[in-house]
Amino acid sequence: MRIDLFPTPAEAAESRLRDRVAAVVDVLRASTTVTTAWSRGADRIIPFGSIEEAKDLFETLPRGSALLCGERNGMKIDGFDLGNSPAEFTEEVVGGKTLLFASSNGTRLMARADGARRKIVASFVNLAAAAEHLSAGGVDVAIVCAGDLGQFNLEDFVCGGALVAEIAARTSVEVSDAARAARMLWDAAYRLRIRELFDDASHGRDLAEIGFGADLDLCAARDAIPVVPVVTDGRITRAPA
Amino acid sequence: MRIDLFPTPAEAAESRLRDRVAAVVDVLRASTTVTTAWSRGADRIIPFGSIEEAKDLFETLPRGSALLCGERNGMKIDGFDLGNSPAEFTEEVVGGKTLLFASSNGTRLMARADGARRKIVASFVNLAAAAEHLSAGGVDVAIVCAGDLGQFNLEDFVCGGALVAEIAARTSVEVSDAARAARMLWDAAYRLRIRELFDDASHGRDLAEIGFGADLDLCAARDAIPVVPVVTDGRITRAPA
Repeated sequence: MRIDLFPTPAEAAESRLRDRVAAVVDVLRASTTVTTAWSRGADRIIPFGSIEEAKDLFETLPRGSALLCGERNGMKIDGFDLGNSPAEFTEEVVGGKTLLFASSNGTRLMARADGARRKIVASFVNLAAAAEHLSAGGVDVAIVCAGDLGQFNLEDFVCGGALVAEIAARTSVEVSDAARAARMLWDAAYRLRIRELFDDASHGRDLAEIGFGADLDLCAARDAIPVVPVVTDGRITRAPA
Repeated sequence: MRIDLFPTPAEAAESRLRDRVAAVVDVLRASTTVTTAWSRGADRIIPFGSIEEAKDLFETLPRGSALLCGERNGMKIDGFDLGNSPAEFTEEVVGGKTLLFASSNGTRLMARADGARRKIVASFVNLAAAAEHLSAGGVDVAIVCAGDLGQFNLEDFVCGGALVAEIAARTSVEVSDAARAARMLWDAAYRLRIRELFDDASHGRDLAEIGFGADLDLCAARDAIPVVPVVTDGRITRAPA
């Protein structure tokens, strides 16, 4: 099985995703939060690239059935119901609801039409589950890091490397340069220090500074939420009964 | 001093290079070859993004004064005088000459008009000299990896990390996430194993396969060529006497 890793979304061109399963990695925080929301019983999660698109769809849905979620610069968007903090997404709040989700990087990438066969949402909280899903599929894998407004970020790259290591523990793999580099960094520096990774990462420090330090502990909880949200046709939905 | 590192040229947008000194890193092989050619007495080196532009300028120059150099897919371009192998650039061949140089990644990046105050050419052969130049300047630094046709490559990222480590040994620095990751990889895995780095890198393996294995030893020779080619106004020229 081939594993490519793309440190930023721009590198993950359509031609490189075709016939792949793509894993969208936005550790701080969209991948973690979407996975949390899914485990807490949200009925559907629809990722968006823009605030306006989310609002437009929201207007068409029955009142009370949906919540607007997302952030800009880390903070909840004006007029939205929820921000991007996993702690907000309790069963009481999101159970049975449709979540329209517009984060700056992760949901934009989940929503992108880019030729991948399907996408899954991956982060440290569902690391083993995501690796299990990807290695069982027998399909070549593209790990796409959300990064930070087009720039490389440390936590997504290292989490991508963790995913490479976990897949390689389950099946035989051939890896790209970036997948190799990311895995080496995970193995050498952060395998036993996920929380410290966020202190080394500029976005982790920024989040702590604006008051989301507690989120970092949630995002560092390896394998705490063993579910794998799958994005199909632009949304994450429960299979029909 | 601030150090940013861009794993691919696309991330190094003009707004991020303004007022910076940029170090262009294309270890295999343009940075190494340009530095070799410069140390062997080339009079001018003019980098190009396209073969046609190089040919057009060549036609305007006095016969015998200039050489067309460069590669596509690692091989010398049809009708060109030299390829991209540092071994070809001897004093006998390039001394006193103008070199018009069109490689696939590195010279394209050197030629790019992107707002950097100036650019230097860096690789393992001039690592300490380049770090000395950058740390002495007192100007924020942008390390731009040439990568491979827009994709991350291992050897440029790690060499960029080596440059971060060498600058940090000389002056106090504040680093971006990518600069930190690259430096960690250098320190943890490759500081004493540059030649093995090329065996781990896909482009290194490709070059060995098409017959350029000997070039890899030249490109791994740390600090063998302690000169720093500076690109100003799109060319590398000796200061007027």
